[in-house]
Amino acid sequence: MTNELIFDDLNAIPGWAKTLPSFDEDAAEAARARQAELTKPPGSLGRLEEIALFVSGWRGDPKPRLERAQALVLAGNHGICAQGVNPFPQEVTAQMVANFEAGGAAINQLCRVAGADLSVIALELDTPTGDFTEGPAMRFDETLEAMARGAEAVDPSADILILGEMGIGNSTIAAALAASAFGGPAADWVGRGTGSDEGGMSLKARVIEAGLSRHEAAGPMERLAALGGREQAAICGAVLAARAARIPVILDGYICTASVAPLAAAEPRLLDHCLIAHASAEPGHARLCAALGKRPILDLGMALGEGSGAALALGIVKGAVACHSGMATFAEAGVAGG
Amino acid sequence: MTNELIFDDLNAIPGWAKTLPSFDEDAAEAARARQAELTKPPGSLGRLEEIALFVSGWRGDPKPRLERAQALVLAGNHGICAQGVNPFPQEVTAQMVANFEAGGAAINQLCRVAGADLSVIALELDTPTGDFTEGPAMRFDETLEAMARGAEAVDPSADILILGEMGIGNSTIAAALAASAFGGPAADWVGRGTGSDEGGMSLKARVIEAGLSRHEAAGPMERLAALGGREQAAICGAVLAARAARIPVILDGYICTASVAPLAAAEPRLLDHCLIAHASAEPGHARLCAALGKRPILDLGMALGEGSGAALALGIVKGAVACHSGMATFAEAGVAGG
Repeated sequence: MTNELIFDDLNAIPGWAKTLPSFDEDAAEAARARQAELTKPPGSLGRLEEIALFVSGWRGDPKPRLERAQALVLAGNHGICAQGVNPFPQEVTAQMVANFEAGGAAINQLCRVAGADLSVIALELDTPTGDFTEGPAMRFDETLEAMARGAEAVDPSADILILGEMGIGNSTIAAALAASAFGGPAADWVGRGTGSDEGGMSLKARVIEAGLSRHEAAGPMERLAALGGREQAAICGAVLAARAARIPVILDGYICTASVAPLAAAEPRLLDHCLIAHASAEPGHARLCAALGKRPILDLGMALGEGSGAALALGIVKGAVACHSGMATFAEAGVAGG
Repeated sequence: MTNELIFDDLNAIPGWAKTLPSFDEDAAEAARARQAELTKPPGSLGRLEEIALFVSGWRGDPKPRLERAQALVLAGNHGICAQGVNPFPQEVTAQMVANFEAGGAAINQLCRVAGADLSVIALELDTPTGDFTEGPAMRFDETLEAMARGAEAVDPSADILILGEMGIGNSTIAAALAASAFGGPAADWVGRGTGSDEGGMSLKARVIEAGLSRHEAAGPMERLAALGGREQAAICGAVLAARAARIPVILDGYICTASVAPLAAAEPRLLDHCLIAHASAEPGHARLCAALGKRPILDLGMALGEGSGAALALGIVKGAVACHSGMATFAEAGVAGG
């Protein structure tokens, strides 16, 4: 187990998250040696082999197990909806949270198939954040509070964490955070979300440009406060808490990935323990993955959110780790060619 | 349930497989209507929605369940190994079958994660097929016998079947069958298999060209006999038997897909109930998928065989069907926007 003081200089990060573990190279090296002995041609499991080494290094275990998978869905409401960026009424956020709690949403079915325990955290849905075209979406203390809510929701005994979100209007928030972290015109980061047409997408881009102009001077975490939402901040908190517990994270799609863009802008290594589940159908996601230097595991044309892609990718990660830790070696199996 | 007499004119197909069910459009239409009512934006589950309709139509059930998944791995040995096409000794086929039976291979771990019951059928491993550069690999009665072995191994009570294979030398067999079915130079269909270098790949291409020249006059199923192996014929048999029982099939990667190329050459609709699990790292696979008009579900750089990619794709298909059949409708959940 190695620890690394990686961002003592960033005063916008909660104190507990300033000293975080780094990848355990020794565990990964031992895992690599094991991999060479397993009953398969070298490299034939492709990406599964990379994923197994990734999990080994982050768990600090050359033969890890993924027995406890936690799925965490964060939900929030957004003042930016006053600008008409989403065709659905804001009440849908709470209705969908009720649907998650009743077991009726996609994420419920997918967690059951993948074997993940689902927790849903609704963040003050009755009090949307501010409209970022008119002022900051959140005060900084509200942002830290939402980060703490996400962090506290992480089960430290989990072996892996998958993250998802729900929030009417939050594809606009995501695009604003991505544009703020990585630059370029807002139109490059905007997509259809839950059902915008061409006009809706133009509106989203204009609204985001207005927000970016208003809040451009701030630092990365201050821009999370200015442009983000509570569920985006909570996702950042959960990612940091998972890192503190050496729990690898599977980010879902566009909105989850954009939610942690402020962390990447502050310190790219903060996301080293995160995988991206799937290439979202939202057009900004490919750009975002490239900016983060991460390749999604799946590409299924999905754009639902809720952690749905992350739950599917969990099956792949579980398969990768099951092969790595459960397969016989050439010597054990009496197979020639090792 | 609709039945379709699709290849009465093909005398090389076993009699029981001449009348096979077709896709149930009514069930698929009812499934499509249900999909529009589920608590998600239309289309947001992407490929999962297509897969759910596919399973609905083939199972003849607008709200299908995938409770019983069968994984079937067929193994054979190949006379073509006399030409030096594979660096591993032929004994590895039986050693790997023993590894499957002992639970030590990748497919065992992946079936456990995906919830599939694994059956392994070893087809006369002590009697390799003939070297196709010198004569036909199999007699036609041997081919039908191997098809029957594959067909009989299918559990008619399964809800879905995933197929895999094992056989030292069978990436050469696969490339020969693909070239025979879809044309083009052998080099276009050849890859590294279990560990060929550039010289090995050139040798494979030369050997295949010799086989194609020798056996070019025959019909599609006769060429399966002339160029194929027992596990390729058994895979064809299993695919037909699954169709007879309205069981959708997930083909693994290059070798599984190439194994059914003779069926496609005989009658393309014979593969309408088959999905391709993953885009293999074998370079011929993309060409083969294009020729069959099928898009693999996963792309993870894998090239192991055994059904490993199919077991991973099963998790995606189970997720698709679980969402489709288990999610609440807008009305049931009290969510606005349906």
